Amino acid sequence: MADGRLIYCPLGGAGEIGMNCYLYGWGKPGAERFIIVDLGVTFPAMDSTPGVSLILPAIDVLRDRIDRIEAIFITHGHEDHAGALGHLYHMLGAPRVVTRAFTGAVVRGKLADHGVDADTVEVIKSYPAMTNAGPFTVGFMPVPHSIPEASGLVIDTPAGRVVHTGDFKIDPDPVVGEPFDRAAWADVAGTGIHALVCDSTNVFCPALGRSEAGLTAPVTRLIEGAGGLVVATTFASNVARLKTLAQAGVDAGRSVCIPGRAMQRILGYARSSGLVDDFPPTVEPEDARNMPHDTLMLIVTGSQGERRSGSDRLAGGNYLGFQMREGDMFLFSSKTIPGNEISVGRIVNALSEQGVTVIDDSTGAYHVSGHANRPDLEATHEIFNPAMVIPMHGEHRHLSTHASLARANGRRAGIVPNGSVAELTASGPRIVEHIETGRTYLDGSRLIGAFDGVVLERLRMATRGVVVVVLLLKDNALPGNPLAACMGLPDTPANQASLQEVLEGEIKGVLAGIGRDLPGDDDAIGQLVNRTVGKVCKNLIGRKPVVKVLINRLAA
Amino acid sequence: MADGRLIYCPLGGAGEIGMNCYLYGWGKPGAERFIIVDLGVTFPAMDSTPGVSLILPAIDVLRDRIDRIEAIFITHGHEDHAGALGHLYHMLGAPRVVTRAFTGAVVRGKLADHGVDADTVEVIKSYPAMTNAGPFTVGFMPVPHSIPEASGLVIDTPAGRVVHTGDFKIDPDPVVGEPFDRAAWADVAGTGIHALVCDSTNVFCPALGRSEAGLTAPVTRLIEGAGGLVVATTFASNVARLKTLAQAGVDAGRSVCIPGRAMQRILGYARSSGLVDDFPPTVEPEDARNMPHDTLMLIVTGSQGERRSGSDRLAGGNYLGFQMREGDMFLFSSKTIPGNEISVGRIVNALSEQGVTVIDDSTGAYHVSGHANRPDLEATHEIFNPAMVIPMHGEHRHLSTHASLARANGRRAGIVPNGSVAELTASGPRIVEHIETGRTYLDGSRLIGAFDGVVLERLRMATRGVVVVVLLLKDNALPGNPLAACMGLPDTPANQASLQEVLEGEIKGVLAGIGRDLPGDDDAIGQLVNRTVGKVCKNLIGRKPVVKVLINRLAA
Repeated sequence: MADGRLIYCPLGGAGEIGMNCYLYGWGKPGAERFIIVDLGVTFPAMDSTPGVSLILPAIDVLRDRIDRIEAIFITHGHEDHAGALGHLYHMLGAPRVVTRAFTGAVVRGKLADHGVDADTVEVIKSYPAMTNAGPFTVGFMPVPHSIPEASGLVIDTPAGRVVHTGDFKIDPDPVVGEPFDRAAWADVAGTGIHALVCDSTNVFCPALGRSEAGLTAPVTRLIEGAGGLVVATTFASNVARLKTLAQAGVDAGRSVCIPGRAMQRILGYARSSGLVDDFPPTVEPEDARNMPHDTLMLIVTGSQGERRSGSDRLAGGNYLGFQMREGDMFLFSSKTIPGNEISVGRIVNALSEQGVTVIDDSTGAYHVSGHANRPDLEATHEIFNPAMVIPMHGEHRHLSTHASLARANGRRAGIVPNGSVAELTASGPRIVEHIETGRTYLDGSRLIGAFDGVVLERLRMATRGVVVVVLLLKDNALPGNPLAACMGLPDTPANQASLQEVLEGEIKGVLAGIGRDLPGDDDAIGQLVNRTVGKVCKNLIGRKPVVKVLINRLAA
Repeated sequence: MADGRLIYCPLGGAGEIGMNCYLYGWGKPGAERFIIVDLGVTFPAMDSTPGVSLILPAIDVLRDRIDRIEAIFITHGHEDHAGALGHLYHMLGAPRVVTRAFTGAVVRGKLADHGVDADTVEVIKSYPAMTNAGPFTVGFMPVPHSIPEASGLVIDTPAGRVVHTGDFKIDPDPVVGEPFDRAAWADVAGTGIHALVCDSTNVFCPALGRSEAGLTAPVTRLIEGAGGLVVATTFASNVARLKTLAQAGVDAGRSVCIPGRAMQRILGYARSSGLVDDFPPTVEPEDARNMPHDTLMLIVTGSQGERRSGSDRLAGGNYLGFQMREGDMFLFSSKTIPGNEISVGRIVNALSEQGVTVIDDSTGAYHVSGHANRPDLEATHEIFNPAMVIPMHGEHRHLSTHASLARANGRRAGIVPNGSVAELTASGPRIVEHIETGRTYLDGSRLIGAFDGVVLERLRMATRGVVVVVLLLKDNALPGNPLAACMGLPDTPANQASLQEVLEGEIKGVLAGIGRDLPGDDDAIGQLVNRTVGKVCKNLIGRKPVVKVLINRLAA
């Protein structure tokens, strides 16, 4: 074996669902050559990251190592695996990007937004084809998931073969793309697997996973039983589901229309990759708008209640000229991702108010997950029979339960959370270092660190309101009146002096009491004013706001 | 029948889960006498109501009708039924408040915080005892729920008997309080029911409801199998669950400690109401702290991931001197309320990082709901056999599905959402009016309307950041430099002029270009500055902030 060590370090995804980004390195300590597996995003939330557009992995640790990055491999085209690529590509020194064909089409679109040429993306065939990347040789092993051409990676290293599953499920009939192929996986495992780095998101699901193909019949029956318009929603990128839904619509005797651009774009990628030559016939929106409601089915985005999605607009009354009415049916062919319950509920209730029958996935008949459930994870461990299992992609509870599952079956397993550098030794993963990791926010057009204080200040303003005080000082005294502006604060009751008046009066009183002996130091005056504002507000409106004091010293 | 009409109007709860408040009125149109059933709150969320402490029903419509309010009846002591009473009591003209004993103890605590005497709360016995309230005669019909002495109301009106279920379930063995008593309900129904106004929250649960008593054995087995410390969490007010958990702990041979004040307070109310004379023995925290972990069980608050709860503090490392460690077990004997997934997940992950085994309700073995499931709702309709079913307490989808369920069984049903005034005629509910309803926010010490703009301004500051510009004008010109302060905004890259500098320079440039011909009107100058700030920020940081322009005109 060459002189060096094999290291593995998640920059995202191992401690959360989303924002997947994993480093593999080989070499002498401090001189490892790296590959990056996936470069995904996670999505901001109003309650923790207001105003933020996207959350990306912090890659500071790579900034002075970009000359040692051999390539980026993207396992599949989902945002939480590929969404950060365009934003971080130049900061990573414009490295090689390697994908399969469909993922390449998705990724090229993302890179084009950042002025990166389409040729940059190197598309290779699936395993047994492999490509060299420094000390590594890497191939794409097809795995079923909820987007076409998802892949695990076969990573041959001087320490042995690593299989990085990416997101996957076991599905012998996934409708689009390669079915689960036990023999092909066994073939990958043939020479012995050093480490299986394995998706953990569905480790809490005890049932055997179900096949995409099993949905067609129940969805068809559901549509056959519907009277008015039928609308179904799912993720745009789930091409197999689009096909399942469209086929069910056609089988039920309806014309199917997919009016939205996001879904059409993905279908375009799938067509150009030769994946959906047998997609059921669809009609154009112009034609669909004039068809009787009970002969039509729409497939739209917005399964997570996203603002401005097809679902959201239908709930609001109109989407591209389509309207729902009493007796129509709306199908969520999707699972609500934890955290999205409120936005999905908003849409369901708005549709309910229009008299629409809403069907969700509570029965399990109209949606299957794209991730491997617990028994499927066990089967995967068994097929690859690795020297160690390293759970990835999940919150800590998922990683921990996945590791326990492997250990219960007599396997070696270790948890390597974000920012831990593990050496994958013959006797298992050994944490050798902890590095700075975290989150970078895309905020407007700027990338900012999660701890820069910008978002924290926004949260403070949102929870406490703001008082801005302007003081004009001359000769170290306050000649006129202070100015106080209140933002996001309730006023005093209508029959009392306004909060602003009371604040200005109190501040003037406090500063006048000191007269010409005001501190020369703006900070000291600021603290004085801050205390006064806090006291007045606490007293009058029961809260202490964020206070900003602006001091303008006039020339004498 | 006396001259008048029977009206029903929800001010909260019919279009949401929480914030229950229902009006019943009898009399000539415009001269009805009212009773209020429940006066609950709902809880604010960082993403929609930052900084707000509590959300109460807007009762503006009652302000000029307070002389026509006969009484407030509180069905049970949960916050979403009783939490607004103290805050709104005086605004409602200090009316009669009528409850059963345990609810009275809870409600007295709430009213005391607002200086209202304990004697104000009138406690009556359960049905067949009844009390007169203007044109109504009202009794409390015991129903099982997840708090002691929950009650439906039997409301005799000149138009006939109305049963308002409150929150309820069908439970023949609820561990604390009266079991479901079909004969007693049938007795209430005996003379014929005009309207059944019925809880809808669990209408989507297809299974028969399960009994509280069924939990003891599985929880006991779970605890018997545990090695280290066992901690269980549930709602403090669920006295039956506290008893179930404590009994299971004792049966499994452990000492049980309930260290938190919220749970102790509720247990105090339950003891003083004679409800838990047979509560299992517990140990004091002082003693428990020195016991070996594997002989102890704690019961704590925080089942919804609430900040500063027992669960939250244990997840953070220390709660009243108790610490969890590797091999301990934490049981959520509760269901996560939609919207709380993220905060509950935060606690689960923090415990998982400490090596604690976390058990949730996913198996259904360790928690039962306090609400009636679909088959139980059907059974309830059947027992009362009302002339009409009016679904209450639920989002629109719940009300709508509940109404469909009733209709499917050949019953008359109608949806009456918040703010709709329905006349309950012999032929069903007929909406006769829509009134202003909505939400009032407790914000610091002030009550503000949801549409006052205060919270909206906070949300705008949180999503967009703030630029405050101060201008000193003299002789209608800008003699010096403007001041720009940025809050919650990223700065320009480090090697460029700061955002503040660029803003101040641009504003000065724009105003200097106009010279002494600046608009005399502050608003016009404000708009000019606002546009400049928007343009600069959009260009440099990709977003348009909230702009506040403060103008100080100096005497010439």
